[in-house]
Amino acid sequence: MVPHLTTALSGPLVSLEKRMLEAMPDIEHWFRSQWQEVAAPFYASVDLRNAGFKLAPVDTNLFPGGFNNLNPDFLSLAVQAAQVAVEKICPDARRLLLIPENHTRNTYYLRNVVELCHILKAAGMEVRVGSLSPEITEVTRLETHDGLPLILEPLVRDKNRLKLNAVTFEGVDYPAFDSCAILLNNDLSGGVPDLLQNLEQNLIPPLHAGWFVRRKSQHFAAYDKVVASFAALLDIDPWLLNPYFDTASGIDFHARVGEDQLADKVDAMLKKIAAKYAEYGIEHAPFVIVKADAGTYGMGIMSVKSADEVRDLNRKTRNKMSVIKEGVEVSEVMIQEGVYTFENINDAVAEPVVYMMDHFVIGGFYRVHTSRGVDENLNAPGMQFVPLAFEKPCTLPDCAGEPDAPPNRFYAYGVVARLALLAAGMELQENDPLNA
Amino acid sequence: MVPHLTTALSGPLVSLEKRMLEAMPDIEHWFRSQWQEVAAPFYASVDLRNAGFKLAPVDTNLFPGGFNNLNPDFLSLAVQAAQVAVEKICPDARRLLLIPENHTRNTYYLRNVVELCHILKAAGMEVRVGSLSPEITEVTRLETHDGLPLILEPLVRDKNRLKLNAVTFEGVDYPAFDSCAILLNNDLSGGVPDLLQNLEQNLIPPLHAGWFVRRKSQHFAAYDKVVASFAALLDIDPWLLNPYFDTASGIDFHARVGEDQLADKVDAMLKKIAAKYAEYGIEHAPFVIVKADAGTYGMGIMSVKSADEVRDLNRKTRNKMSVIKEGVEVSEVMIQEGVYTFENINDAVAEPVVYMMDHFVIGGFYRVHTSRGVDENLNAPGMQFVPLAFEKPCTLPDCAGEPDAPPNRFYAYGVVARLALLAAGMELQENDPLNA
Repeated sequence: MVPHLTTALSGPLVSLEKRMLEAMPDIEHWFRSQWQEVAAPFYASVDLRNAGFKLAPVDTNLFPGGFNNLNPDFLSLAVQAAQVAVEKICPDARRLLLIPENHTRNTYYLRNVVELCHILKAAGMEVRVGSLSPEITEVTRLETHDGLPLILEPLVRDKNRLKLNAVTFEGVDYPAFDSCAILLNNDLSGGVPDLLQNLEQNLIPPLHAGWFVRRKSQHFAAYDKVVASFAALLDIDPWLLNPYFDTASGIDFHARVGEDQLADKVDAMLKKIAAKYAEYGIEHAPFVIVKADAGTYGMGIMSVKSADEVRDLNRKTRNKMSVIKEGVEVSEVMIQEGVYTFENINDAVAEPVVYMMDHFVIGGFYRVHTSRGVDENLNAPGMQFVPLAFEKPCTLPDCAGEPDAPPNRFYAYGVVARLALLAAGMELQENDPLNA
Repeated sequence: MVPHLTTALSGPLVSLEKRMLEAMPDIEHWFRSQWQEVAAPFYASVDLRNAGFKLAPVDTNLFPGGFNNLNPDFLSLAVQAAQVAVEKICPDARRLLLIPENHTRNTYYLRNVVELCHILKAAGMEVRVGSLSPEITEVTRLETHDGLPLILEPLVRDKNRLKLNAVTFEGVDYPAFDSCAILLNNDLSGGVPDLLQNLEQNLIPPLHAGWFVRRKSQHFAAYDKVVASFAALLDIDPWLLNPYFDTASGIDFHARVGEDQLADKVDAMLKKIAAKYAEYGIEHAPFVIVKADAGTYGMGIMSVKSADEVRDLNRKTRNKMSVIKEGVEVSEVMIQEGVYTFENINDAVAEPVVYMMDHFVIGGFYRVHTSRGVDENLNAPGMQFVPLAFEKPCTLPDCAGEPDAPPNRFYAYGVVARLALLAAGMELQENDPLNA
């Protein structure tokens, strides 16, 4: 089933997609040359917003947590891409220690870990899962929402290596496990735990990909550069692919410090968006998203349509905005142009999420919410979304079809997601302590 | 639909497949290290024979002609692999000139060319098809058996480059075409045409991959080395994956020169096979395949069960054996252990063919013949075979399933095909004039 998409097809997006299809050999050639300069992250997911008149990334996750939402029919694409990624990063590796998030009670997240293990095993790796969670003091069998087992093992620090002990569990002998590489599926929002400090093993992605270092604004600054070059290649307005952003620091939502600064910046951005909307004849109300610059997991985010809204925050919103994952306090925020999502599936708002391994698009899914608006963030804690796997891979445009034919829309998604991936690669290079 | 396979499942093959599944991380690690040393051919197909007690390649084609027989559901795997192959061989290429065989009347072969163009275009290349055929003196529209168009253009030599002229054809403007790389889907059985001599463009695969240079015996000599190393890794008898072979030169089938030499070698090989059959308790009659050492396209091949059979060749068989594709005379033959195929699909004999691009398995199909025996060659000219695409890719074994479950059998096919691919890579290195 290909999801039925109801986008504003009469606007510039169709022409944008058409432009991408026409320029496909140039685009792929451009990407090839970019990847000669920039190393692709091991894996990533990118949240896109499709406003009809604009198609843009709004968040890039370097520790993707939804592999279980991909179309299982295209698992072989992920396996092939994982083989390329392993060959590049550590061709000699034969074992991978996977370290997931500590959400041991989120059975959907556990299903993601099971799927990721499945992909890596099919790519020919021996994979075991070691947990940072203080609750995992012995080998533990967890179960996914659909009844699959996941064995978590306690990590053992041995000098500068992380290992797993030999153990017999449920009648199965697991030998001691010393891997050449460690794959993180944990975004390190709370900083680098002692167990992970000064390891001699190869960490994938590197520690500086963690949210204790990353800033969304740094990512979007790199994305600015990427889109400037790409838009010149296609001779299009970069704004069609790029949301405006700004930052504000020294904010204390509890103490109401920095509210005026934030309100002024929100106001300035709303005016810039309004000018663009006027230029393109778009009759929607501009909005901005204010989010924690180091935030993730859908925490610390609000959608505002006027500067006044950030001046009159009620206590509940101030609480919501001031603390993010792992209890980290928010003092730096990003003000990002809000991009409407006009994709609908059965009257529910939908947001595409594209998955990549190395520099390959391996699939994606729609985050579908029945209870949220077109101008709201769809990645919110505690809200269930319905994942809807893309039926087709993003790599097979139907050049004879209409630009809004689903395979062609998916090609455009894959292009924009790869632009964000390229920005993430540049960002990782900039933050690499070896380049400091 | 997964084809129903009726193989001799009680024999050593199941244990061989089981061994491969158990050793999968070691096998993939071994392949990774091999591909660090040996460059994979751009593309290849490998014909396998599955005797139940033995699984072996019998022919490796470096100009595969059956892309149209692959499962279209897995086209994206081919596209991804083609992207890797292009990145490796000429990352800066944006155009590819494809030169096919001159079989302009084989509408199934044309369908292969259309499919190959589709894959390369989806990988982001501009692709046009230039023909070596003297019949193609102007732009020509051909049609595949299923009604798809294929535009062939005459090649234009311009100093040391091959180009296509600008032309308007059927109302479409085609600009002049000068490609950085040329992809050959023509096996050069008759030697290198003048048009292809001394080109400065990158030829893929290189000219020395053509049958005017290649010898099957050289390929299987390289395969001997590959299997020796692989069998040591798995601690198995290399014979389970490797057919015996020998060569005879100075043969003239017309003049009956060299018959005794050939008969003696056939006899010696039948005895070696009989000894192995006795060792494994196999109650079938050994047979050997005698084939032109430089032969292709299913020409110049016969199946014999006793030395006498090569002494009493009738006129028709002598004619058949003495000339191969492009009218090349046969004087060197390979004597290869015959491997039974005990795979059956609806009572017809079936032979798996595995397709690869770069070092990735991208799919395969069964060659199914209703009118041939288990000890005959299934790739014969003038014989229609029914292609049956593998339902599953070869990269996703079901480790929890039985060794003879289809995904696991396909994994074993993919492993053996990659062993032959590695041999082809070594063979190309040996024949590279730059290494002479």
